[in-house]
Amino acid sequence: MEVYLDNSATTQVFDSVKDVVIKTMAEEYGNPSAMHRKGIIAERYIKEAKEVLAKSLKVESKEIFFTSGGTESNNMALIGAAMANRRSGSRIITTEIEHPSVKNTMKYLEEQGFELIILPVDKVGKVRLEVLEEVMTPDTILVSVMYVNNEIGSVQPIEEISSIIHTKNPKVAFHVDGVQAFGKYKIYPKRMGIDLFSASGHKIHAPKGVGFLYKNAAVKVKPVVFGGGQQDGMRSGTLNVPGIAGLACATAEVYSDFSQKQERLYQLKEKLVQGLGAIEGVRINGMTGREGAPHIVSAGFLGIRSEVLLHALEDKGIYVSAGSACSAHKASVSPTLKAIGVEKEYLGSVIRFSFSEFTTEKEIQYTLEVIRELLPMLGKYV
Amino acid sequence: MEVYLDNSATTQVFDSVKDVVIKTMAEEYGNPSAMHRKGIIAERYIKEAKEVLAKSLKVESKEIFFTSGGTESNNMALIGAAMANRRSGSRIITTEIEHPSVKNTMKYLEEQGFELIILPVDKVGKVRLEVLEEVMTPDTILVSVMYVNNEIGSVQPIEEISSIIHTKNPKVAFHVDGVQAFGKYKIYPKRMGIDLFSASGHKIHAPKGVGFLYKNAAVKVKPVVFGGGQQDGMRSGTLNVPGIAGLACATAEVYSDFSQKQERLYQLKEKLVQGLGAIEGVRINGMTGREGAPHIVSAGFLGIRSEVLLHALEDKGIYVSAGSACSAHKASVSPTLKAIGVEKEYLGSVIRFSFSEFTTEKEIQYTLEVIRELLPMLGKYV
Repeated sequence: MEVYLDNSATTQVFDSVKDVVIKTMAEEYGNPSAMHRKGIIAERYIKEAKEVLAKSLKVESKEIFFTSGGTESNNMALIGAAMANRRSGSRIITTEIEHPSVKNTMKYLEEQGFELIILPVDKVGKVRLEVLEEVMTPDTILVSVMYVNNEIGSVQPIEEISSIIHTKNPKVAFHVDGVQAFGKYKIYPKRMGIDLFSASGHKIHAPKGVGFLYKNAAVKVKPVVFGGGQQDGMRSGTLNVPGIAGLACATAEVYSDFSQKQERLYQLKEKLVQGLGAIEGVRINGMTGREGAPHIVSAGFLGIRSEVLLHALEDKGIYVSAGSACSAHKASVSPTLKAIGVEKEYLGSVIRFSFSEFTTEKEIQYTLEVIRELLPMLGKYV
Repeated sequence: MEVYLDNSATTQVFDSVKDVVIKTMAEEYGNPSAMHRKGIIAERYIKEAKEVLAKSLKVESKEIFFTSGGTESNNMALIGAAMANRRSGSRIITTEIEHPSVKNTMKYLEEQGFELIILPVDKVGKVRLEVLEEVMTPDTILVSVMYVNNEIGSVQPIEEISSIIHTKNPKVAFHVDGVQAFGKYKIYPKRMGIDLFSASGHKIHAPKGVGFLYKNAAVKVKPVVFGGGQQDGMRSGTLNVPGIAGLACATAEVYSDFSQKQERLYQLKEKLVQGLGAIEGVRINGMTGREGAPHIVSAGFLGIRSEVLLHALEDKGIYVSAGSACSAHKASVSPTLKAIGVEKEYLGSVIRFSFSEFTTEKEIQYTLEVIRELLPMLGKYV
């Protein structure tokens, strides 16, 4: 049995995505900037993709900008907004559990002279709102808070955060890294007070190498990539038609029958959390119920190094992640796990299980059985 | 008959490319950063792709960095090298016929305080080397010259330019935008004295949304995208495995039986140049023989607006470009055509024909016939 539980690292593309990617690579392969028919057809894919994404977020088509993925979307939003609003102030704010593409971009901005404030989180990974209230000074120009944490699945009270920010200063640009949230929640930036929203294709069964940034039309962002002026000059470069068409296709698919899919993910999570929770020496990190993301379960296994368990599970056909796979093989201690106060004896033993709509109850059942079988053996070799 | 002569805008993917893209999207879809088998397999595609590219350029694997395309490669090379070498000087040099992704990036750097020098070209689009010699001051840190011009196909004497630059100052980073040259010429950066070399996938039958930058290991470049530290920290973001595998596959294919393919392109060019040259009121721009690129022919049609001819050709199934398709529908006058001194009466009437290895002699024959048939009719409506 093969059980892929590393969907927060990346996903298999949908069949429908595969079809549209092939079609736009091999048949309707024009450059959207070309004036002839092949260009017009390619441009239509872009226009339709913008509409699909705009509809799913209830925003305008012109507020969608395509990028090469979540990392670029985050870089573009943060550097672009900071540089565009430099005259209004220098304070920028984020949290201690952000993805490296936010954290390291904010650090870069700090090197460029911005004043960086990093918000703490509580034991389940929720941002401390009282600290946010305190640090929201009049010279704050940018706040970035992730929607769903990629390692532990904690979910932030985005609307509440937006309200705090915008009550203090309506001009602050509020960026939300939605890479792990898009497709798992219905997200309406306008209603929720999100000014900039990043997402990635390959986390929702679209191809790697594509993502988007929603940018509220009223928010100032300077481009960070220069060239032929595509996408209203906000992001130059030939548009990646197959990737973009695939992203739109995947978006439409993840948001069809959405409530049932989300409910099913919650049930899978509950099953895994209950099963793991009943095993001695296993501790679940973050938000264990429906207050947390439906597709991510993070668990520490006392006395077992996570790589050891990862490879033992792999031998049984189960693919999981040790901490976050987003940091290119680095075996360093996770700042997120430290931030939520995971005890020393659990820090090196954390495994992330992440689901997709392809994940079945049977697979969770099998995973639990394998873990119960493995743990007594692995414990011996510590 | 369908005749696609807009290959400098974008190309149809090879069948072999399509196959590897499908495989890596739908089967071997792991994240190269993941520690389990699916990650290892994905990482192997990356490693092999680097080797294929490194071999084709006779450089080292670790000197290849993947990007989202030519525009990003140019941005990364220029901004990264300028920022990394800021302390050594402030002069940066480029030419007046660069692609917007070089030109506008250089302008951005000028706004950041660098001193930008723009080199003139002669009547066929060759950089004036005597001017380069003059402006190469000790505080010059970066020179960027394109290999093949995208609009007129003029080819620069890259080795000679490198020699002038590096004789004056061995520390200067010499960047070459190779987007229109890669796959059309054998390019050996080490032998030719190129420090940074940009290329794009979709110009050589690989997918859109992928490209690479060769960076000589000794040249300092600061990253411009921040995140999880992939690619030795030079370009963060989940690696686009399908795009990268497709790029490697296309590279291997374009460089197999290379000399025959190049010879065939030269012959197609000669046929088209001769045929067009024999028509009254038609003037060929740039380098009309083998000193110019084998796959690009630019021609002005006296008294006929290029859009009019473009659409008339389209009605006959022939796809060409009016000027450069890289600038997102902009109908402004081409700086390249102005730079080579194209007369006013020809400026708005230029058509670019660009070939690929799929282009046949029959197609060129047909194109010439159609043009001969159309011109007398179109001339009437001026």
